[in-house]
Amino acid sequence: VTTYRTVQRKRDGEELEPAEIAAFLIAYQEGRVADYQMAAFLMAVFIRGMTSAELNAMVDVMLHSGEVVDLSSVEGTKVDKHSTGGVGDKVSIVLAPLVASLGVPVPMMSGRGLGHSGGTVDKLESIPGFRTGLTLAEYRAQMERVGCALIAQTDEVAPLDRKLYALRDVTATVESIPLIASSIMSKKLAEGIDALVLDVKVGNGAFLPEESAATELARTMIEVGEAHGRSVVARMTAMDRPLGHAVGNALEIAECVQALRGGGPPDLREVTVELAAEMLVLGGASPDLAAGREQAATALNDGRALEKMHEIIMAQGGDARVLDEPVRLPRAAIRRDILCEKPGIAGVMDVRAIGHAAVALGAGRSQLGAAIDPAVGLDIPVKPGDPVERGERIATIYAQDEASAAAAAATLREAIPVGAAKPATLPLIGKRLTGAAVTTARAQ
Amino acid sequence: VTTYRTVQRKRDGEELEPAEIAAFLIAYQEGRVADYQMAAFLMAVFIRGMTSAELNAMVDVMLHSGEVVDLSSVEGTKVDKHSTGGVGDKVSIVLAPLVASLGVPVPMMSGRGLGHSGGTVDKLESIPGFRTGLTLAEYRAQMERVGCALIAQTDEVAPLDRKLYALRDVTATVESIPLIASSIMSKKLAEGIDALVLDVKVGNGAFLPEESAATELARTMIEVGEAHGRSVVARMTAMDRPLGHAVGNALEIAECVQALRGGGPPDLREVTVELAAEMLVLGGASPDLAAGREQAATALNDGRALEKMHEIIMAQGGDARVLDEPVRLPRAAIRRDILCEKPGIAGVMDVRAIGHAAVALGAGRSQLGAAIDPAVGLDIPVKPGDPVERGERIATIYAQDEASAAAAAATLREAIPVGAAKPATLPLIGKRLTGAAVTTARAQ
Repeated sequence: VTTYRTVQRKRDGEELEPAEIAAFLIAYQEGRVADYQMAAFLMAVFIRGMTSAELNAMVDVMLHSGEVVDLSSVEGTKVDKHSTGGVGDKVSIVLAPLVASLGVPVPMMSGRGLGHSGGTVDKLESIPGFRTGLTLAEYRAQMERVGCALIAQTDEVAPLDRKLYALRDVTATVESIPLIASSIMSKKLAEGIDALVLDVKVGNGAFLPEESAATELARTMIEVGEAHGRSVVARMTAMDRPLGHAVGNALEIAECVQALRGGGPPDLREVTVELAAEMLVLGGASPDLAAGREQAATALNDGRALEKMHEIIMAQGGDARVLDEPVRLPRAAIRRDILCEKPGIAGVMDVRAIGHAAVALGAGRSQLGAAIDPAVGLDIPVKPGDPVERGERIATIYAQDEASAAAAAATLREAIPVGAAKPATLPLIGKRLTGAAVTTARAQ
Repeated sequence: VTTYRTVQRKRDGEELEPAEIAAFLIAYQEGRVADYQMAAFLMAVFIRGMTSAELNAMVDVMLHSGEVVDLSSVEGTKVDKHSTGGVGDKVSIVLAPLVASLGVPVPMMSGRGLGHSGGTVDKLESIPGFRTGLTLAEYRAQMERVGCALIAQTDEVAPLDRKLYALRDVTATVESIPLIASSIMSKKLAEGIDALVLDVKVGNGAFLPEESAATELARTMIEVGEAHGRSVVARMTAMDRPLGHAVGNALEIAECVQALRGGGPPDLREVTVELAAEMLVLGGASPDLAAGREQAATALNDGRALEKMHEIIMAQGGDARVLDEPVRLPRAAIRRDILCEKPGIAGVMDVRAIGHAAVALGAGRSQLGAAIDPAVGLDIPVKPGDPVERGERIATIYAQDEASAAAAAATLREAIPVGAAKPATLPLIGKRLTGAAVTTARAQ
């Protein structure tokens, strides 16, 4: 089958043979299919969709396009967590040491900030000295020794995904469920995991705000995982508000330290404990979710999670004193509080605008490869539905100059409305999806 | 509106603003939109289609992307004919001098062979010395002096169409009705015409074999023409058989000379006379189609069309003696007759296979820019439905070597079936479409 014929068949909504899709992708990786041909193909996939068989063939080629990490030298069932991304989503930084402290190895490769959302790697790098760029040999060695590593995706793992993503990013072919699923799952399958928990965000701050689309994405990733012999559980969590209070890299690390000490915002703790319970069950460390939640809460309260984080930071060259002295984290010079102008009830927030406000302060990138400022960000102590008084602090801006602080203030006043009625909000923890069964609301 | 947003909107089936589509195309022409972005856009257009307003905006940009020829110095209503292409379609070479001989100026820019179909320019170039590559100044001067010019599309006219076509050709985005219509109409509108007759082929040898698709293409081109103030009439003609007997460049010129002398195959003459009548009416030289047919038939019989062709060949540097001495045309060394093996009735031909057989002999190109051999080709004297005897000649192959002759013979035996029943065939001249009214079958 020629390149042309493959594009034509996908264009016309025909189902491609697995071998055909594999040949096309390999030809692209080797430079025998041009970017413009792949762009036409990706647009056809965007509009026509993909069958499970097509998607699995695509993921196969992508995951084998570089190194496939072998973690068989690490004892136990390796379980990772992936979030579809949001604002203030710092869960990984609490969750990974927490789960590892309970004996389940957590090999975690994370991304950088994208669009309005922050990235785990950017956040970790606000810890002075913390190296996210380990080699695969260092990564494997740390997994053996510490049971957890928090690193950036490397060029060696799934390089075809990187090439495809860069093309999708400039051809309006990003928000396709099979393409998103192929990108996430090819990287996760290549990093050496046995099982995966997906945190699928819904709400206006999520990349796929609608629950129906988020559900389809979750189901698709579960199918791909199972087709590749991995257990996958997906949880839908709310992104119609930032998670926790802090938005911005060093601010979020400080909040993670609170959570690792058994404190921090309740919503951050609740989501972390729930996802930890899923990972502990998948990793064979808990008999069921209820027991897993109990174990996780205990390990946050008794310092075991914090101790594991200490080990991880030391192993990756970071200054672990930040765990005891958060003042060692960078903090911007200007601090401006936003006070509530009238009594009422906090309404539904424009989470995407809040994320963009943080990016505009310097917490994220407007251009590929730009430097970020770990010291800037936002603190938003209120949640939708909270009663607020006149003069009560509803946000704090950490900025490096007055102009950007003023811009952020204007955005936040719009993005955090105060009204008379209690707003309709999403449940913090929503549907649970697995390969076999789906339960709505919280699984007990 | 950003480039990304334009691709995204078309992807999602939204209607683009004319200014938006124009900005996108101009950015592509100027190199600010990359090939891969245009490829994604073209695929989205292929699948989602285009509204009339979108298509007219696209045609506007394409037609103004280069020189727009001003033929106001040529008196009269300038009328051209465009065929959607087929096998043995040599009509232009008889029609243009015929109509010009009756006082209607015919400015004709034609293409080269494409796929299984031949091209008017390739055919004309088999006349020794004939120059199809006139400059626009020479073209205009010849129009003023002779009232007809038969030239190749130049780089100066609609260069954006050329760039887009090359990209469509490698991204499986060729067979899209709005994209085909934009390509044809932008070139025709730029060449200086006032009115246009479209010869829309249907049947297995056409690029759009189905009558429904061909009709949609015809209607689309009529709409574009009218939106640009030009009268357009479309005629559907049969391409479930080659037109005339000859397939191949010099062979087709020889057949055209027969037609210009009042002879030649009846189907070639009938289609030519019908299209000439349409052009004569549009050009104001005939009051109605019946009178136009009469005038056209007379000008073929009394030598006026032949005389005009003599003038054209002389003006374009060709050896006009071919009109009296066809032996001056190149003719391949090997001539092989295919004889009928059993008595019966000639069936429905595989016209595309016949076209490809001629290409394989060297009459067309398998690769862009390759040289063609004017001397080779086929002669197929039978038509579907004709009774044939055992031993009767059903085809002749003109080849340069035995191997290619044998290959063509094998193809032709398959492509020209002989059976017991009279096959279902298309009417030689079918529907007539105009902006205002549509009549089925032949208009009287």
